[in-house]
Amino acid sequence: MSDARAITELAKRRGFFFGANEAYGGVAGFYTFGPEGAALKRNVESAWRDRFTVREGNDEIEAPTIAPEPVFEASGHLDGFDDMLVECGECGESHRADHLIEDASDVEEAESLPIPEVEDLVAEYEVACPSCGAPLAGRSIEEFNLMFETAIGPGSGQRGFLRPETAQGIFVEFPRLKEYARNTLPFGITQIGRAYRNEISPRKGIVRTREFTQAELEQFVDPDDDDPPLERVADVSLRLYPAPEQEDGEGSEIPRATGEAGDGGYVEATVAEAVEEGIVTSEWVAYYLGVAREWYERIGVDMDRFRFRQHLAGERAHYAADCWDAESEVGGAADDPEDPTDGDWIEIAGFASRGDYDLSKHAEHGDDDFTVFEQYDDPRTVERAVVDPDMSVLGPEFGGRAGDVADALRDLAERDPDAFEGETVTVAVDGEDVTVESEVANFRIEEQTEAGEHVTPYVIEPSFGVDRTVYTLIAHAYGHDEVDGEERTYLSLSPEVAPTDVAVFPLVSDDALEALADEVVADLRRAGLSVAHDDSGNIGRRYRRQDEVGTPLSVTVDHESVESEPGTVTVRDRDTTAQVRVPVDDLAAALESVLESGESFDRLLERYDPVDTDVTRS
Amino acid sequence: MSDARAITELAKRRGFFFGANEAYGGVAGFYTFGPEGAALKRNVESAWRDRFTVREGNDEIEAPTIAPEPVFEASGHLDGFDDMLVECGECGESHRADHLIEDASDVEEAESLPIPEVEDLVAEYEVACPSCGAPLAGRSIEEFNLMFETAIGPGSGQRGFLRPETAQGIFVEFPRLKEYARNTLPFGITQIGRAYRNEISPRKGIVRTREFTQAELEQFVDPDDDDPPLERVADVSLRLYPAPEQEDGEGSEIPRATGEAGDGGYVEATVAEAVEEGIVTSEWVAYYLGVAREWYERIGVDMDRFRFRQHLAGERAHYAADCWDAESEVGGAADDPEDPTDGDWIEIAGFASRGDYDLSKHAEHGDDDFTVFEQYDDPRTVERAVVDPDMSVLGPEFGGRAGDVADALRDLAERDPDAFEGETVTVAVDGEDVTVESEVANFRIEEQTEAGEHVTPYVIEPSFGVDRTVYTLIAHAYGHDEVDGEERTYLSLSPEVAPTDVAVFPLVSDDALEALADEVVADLRRAGLSVAHDDSGNIGRRYRRQDEVGTPLSVTVDHESVESEPGTVTVRDRDTTAQVRVPVDDLAAALESVLESGESFDRLLERYDPVDTDVTRS
Repeated sequence: MSDARAITELAKRRGFFFGANEAYGGVAGFYTFGPEGAALKRNVESAWRDRFTVREGNDEIEAPTIAPEPVFEASGHLDGFDDMLVECGECGESHRADHLIEDASDVEEAESLPIPEVEDLVAEYEVACPSCGAPLAGRSIEEFNLMFETAIGPGSGQRGFLRPETAQGIFVEFPRLKEYARNTLPFGITQIGRAYRNEISPRKGIVRTREFTQAELEQFVDPDDDDPPLERVADVSLRLYPAPEQEDGEGSEIPRATGEAGDGGYVEATVAEAVEEGIVTSEWVAYYLGVAREWYERIGVDMDRFRFRQHLAGERAHYAADCWDAESEVGGAADDPEDPTDGDWIEIAGFASRGDYDLSKHAEHGDDDFTVFEQYDDPRTVERAVVDPDMSVLGPEFGGRAGDVADALRDLAERDPDAFEGETVTVAVDGEDVTVESEVANFRIEEQTEAGEHVTPYVIEPSFGVDRTVYTLIAHAYGHDEVDGEERTYLSLSPEVAPTDVAVFPLVSDDALEALADEVVADLRRAGLSVAHDDSGNIGRRYRRQDEVGTPLSVTVDHESVESEPGTVTVRDRDTTAQVRVPVDDLAAALESVLESGESFDRLLERYDPVDTDVTRS
Repeated sequence: MSDARAITELAKRRGFFFGANEAYGGVAGFYTFGPEGAALKRNVESAWRDRFTVREGNDEIEAPTIAPEPVFEASGHLDGFDDMLVECGECGESHRADHLIEDASDVEEAESLPIPEVEDLVAEYEVACPSCGAPLAGRSIEEFNLMFETAIGPGSGQRGFLRPETAQGIFVEFPRLKEYARNTLPFGITQIGRAYRNEISPRKGIVRTREFTQAELEQFVDPDDDDPPLERVADVSLRLYPAPEQEDGEGSEIPRATGEAGDGGYVEATVAEAVEEGIVTSEWVAYYLGVAREWYERIGVDMDRFRFRQHLAGERAHYAADCWDAESEVGGAADDPEDPTDGDWIEIAGFASRGDYDLSKHAEHGDDDFTVFEQYDDPRTVERAVVDPDMSVLGPEFGGRAGDVADALRDLAERDPDAFEGETVTVAVDGEDVTVESEVANFRIEEQTEAGEHVTPYVIEPSFGVDRTVYTLIAHAYGHDEVDGEERTYLSLSPEVAPTDVAVFPLVSDDALEALADEVVADLRRAGLSVAHDDSGNIGRRYRRQDEVGTPLSVTVDHESVESEPGTVTVRDRDTTAQVRVPVDDLAAALESVLESGESFDRLLERYDPVDTDVTRS
């Protein structure tokens, strides 16, 4: 069994995640997080909030997941958020044409190709329907919009959509959010919440779902004035996979799963070097790559299976100046149909410098002010070309159009003051050229005092996939070994994200042991630890259960606890299975030293008596 | 301005909540929580999780918000989750007919009336369209399903719905969840997440929205065996408003906003008394009323504006044995159209004893086992009537129907063993009576050993509206007074839910003061407090800003901090505006004593030097 299948099986058996609604046959692309998975996911979200909201001094909001049509007209999702749909003529199943091409050929990033070319490739590679085997050549390919649509209110209602990303809920509220930020750039707004994509045919388990959780940060900056605090992460080392390196070597193919430093065209550089050498062109993007690298390491992503990959030209939106993905390698065999990973690297976050695209679009479509008025330190005197058209001339000459002519003259003065130098001046009104005498315009250059200017902020957007991060953490924590001659599976999750901090067991069913165990549980909960209390099954089985859900430490109340060494309990380390005997009075502090201060279990082994494990496992 | 309007205005101005997508005209029933509101909401959710998940030993899951049609066929939402829709013939606007009736008459709970009766009432009270004033008499009233519908996947897709409550995501996964609970009752599963109701015409601001957050607990219990740990809350005092008291007095009308103990038919009873006297018939419901009462008080709901109201017969689902709502009184004037409350009590939670309705429905519709197999302490020997039909007789006689005849005999043996006492026995097969000789059935009574039995658990469901709780907390915390001759607005939010624990200000713009303020901020954040750092505007204005968002404590670094009393700062209490001077070294501990241990600010006044506020407000 591949690791990926084993992980999926473990996830289901132990309550991390599983396909939803299975009693009704399930629907592809929807997963439920069970108790362990929901706790792990919550801890990832808390760690993200701590790093990207609190410590960065940003503010978090919560917008609705349903928004009305005009929002997505403005954002471009209504027109451009499509996948290539091909329907089998034989069995009627729908598939993503670009994925079929990629599976059948060496073509990569087929979604960036034009549709006719993809239709040709389907024919050329004789692509067959994965469901029934019928040939798909000749079937037409259509753009399928990935937003879930619904109707708001009764009757035909108002068209609404489930948000395909949390970001728009921040952009549309910019006019209000800037007030809370007291009209001062830069400021950052974050949001953690559900987003939806109506995938044509979701295949990769929890890696590609129709409903998922995003953690997004929109950093609003003055395009001219604001620099990131790069010094904070200048020395953080990044494994970068720039676009040129991806296109090198074997033509335009992207090497997969190489994972070795220096191999596969990786560039190892600090954040400062990446900026200096122009590998990452946006300093704000570079800053957040550094912050993200530290954060991923902190929560337990294996840095040997992690990289930042630059988008190729074809992947990047036209407005995105530079874009990098954080990718993790989640193992597994590409030929295993149950393998949710295809043995691939998966995107777990994106970092895009989006310019003023988003706010400009909403300014164009929406009825509000999407700029920030930035006051100058001192008012500035500027020369400005102005006209004051003589309506007593324009009125009789142009009748109802006189106002439009005056407006056109004003526009022209701003755009091209030189146009007023001749005898006459010509402007276009409703597509028709209109010529008037220049003096009618009353053109002049005026000195004006300006207190500040309206700036449309640029947006830098680090956007994280929470579900994929959860999957990566499990995949990178997944291990097996042999303990006392028995095969063991464990998750070496970092204490910060592990669903449970510590498990407490009475060794056997005995009143004295159980009473002490109850006390220990109450003590540890008072100390703020998350505690599992398990008294069912033999002790070896209980340890295995905790190992499989990644509980870092287990405390056992044994016979010695109430007899030869009263008031002591054993503490077991998940990864090494080493054990020490600790007085109950020291217990909370000892556990916290490992769980919160990141001290190694070895320090407990130095401080307390090690336990001969053969004895405790009686 | 009524309090309710003032609160809505404050919520918008300070970033608690506001109508979403206003740049596009907005859509009724959708709200965005700004930075302060999102923090308050998150704190309410954490406090709920702490009380109803962690401390109760329950497990939390996260299910998708979209589910396929069969789930809601089973749950009954597809057929029964409707409101009464009347469309104006003149302007085309849609309205809730029951609400119009209630506004126009003394009729209460009009939604429990049959449609023809509501149509008659519309005519009788000459109800007019609230939008255009046209009479609605004679317009037909229709059932409008409140679920948002969508299509999953391409083409016509599969019908899916946004969940109208988080609960179904727990019920449908019961077959797996019981495994995680090791097939042992009782156990509880919680979920906090978005739910959706496509309201016909949402009117009450954030109190009645189309997208909202629920916190639900499904407590699964053995109907015969499990009792709640009632002793934990036996002495908690409840203000109950039982159904008979609501129907007393002025006919069937429900007295509103009386709010006085003993007035309006309230019964004040402890949890123990409520159970003993049969006021609350379900012990589990009574238990959770007690837990909820304590929790609401802890997070800051004003207990003088809080009650538990029993559902009237017409409000209760047919399967619900008993049902109580937690209600809060959120003030305001009924005649103010902008008032989101109608001067009413609002439901903020429901407590229902749902029997085996939910799991039985899913067992009926779904393909899985929705029971728990409960092992007996010792295997039991039971007498069981069995038959072993002689197929060598039935076969020739009944041909293809022989199997059905045999099955019918087996059913009959279980149902009515006495039927086999005569010479012949008659069973119905496909609606036709079939008679065979009794001895062909080989009837006998057997002793069987049974290890346990399959039990369909009963469900007790405490279900909380998070948004309404947030609104209640703001409404109950809202106050104004006069400080130094100036009108002041403040929110006396409890420290556990306040968006920010403490604000830190340098008194004036000065390098030394700012440096010390930065240090203080870093110290307090390290101590785990949520800290706002504000250095804009005069100090009085900064205090007001924090008062309005409910920050319990403010720390100011003033001239004394770096001159006459180095290393000290002032700490100001939000509610009393009293101030003390505290050494920076003591600061974190002093603040935590108030914020976390619930000590009164008076204790700080005893321990440290009070500050003459006229001096600090220079």
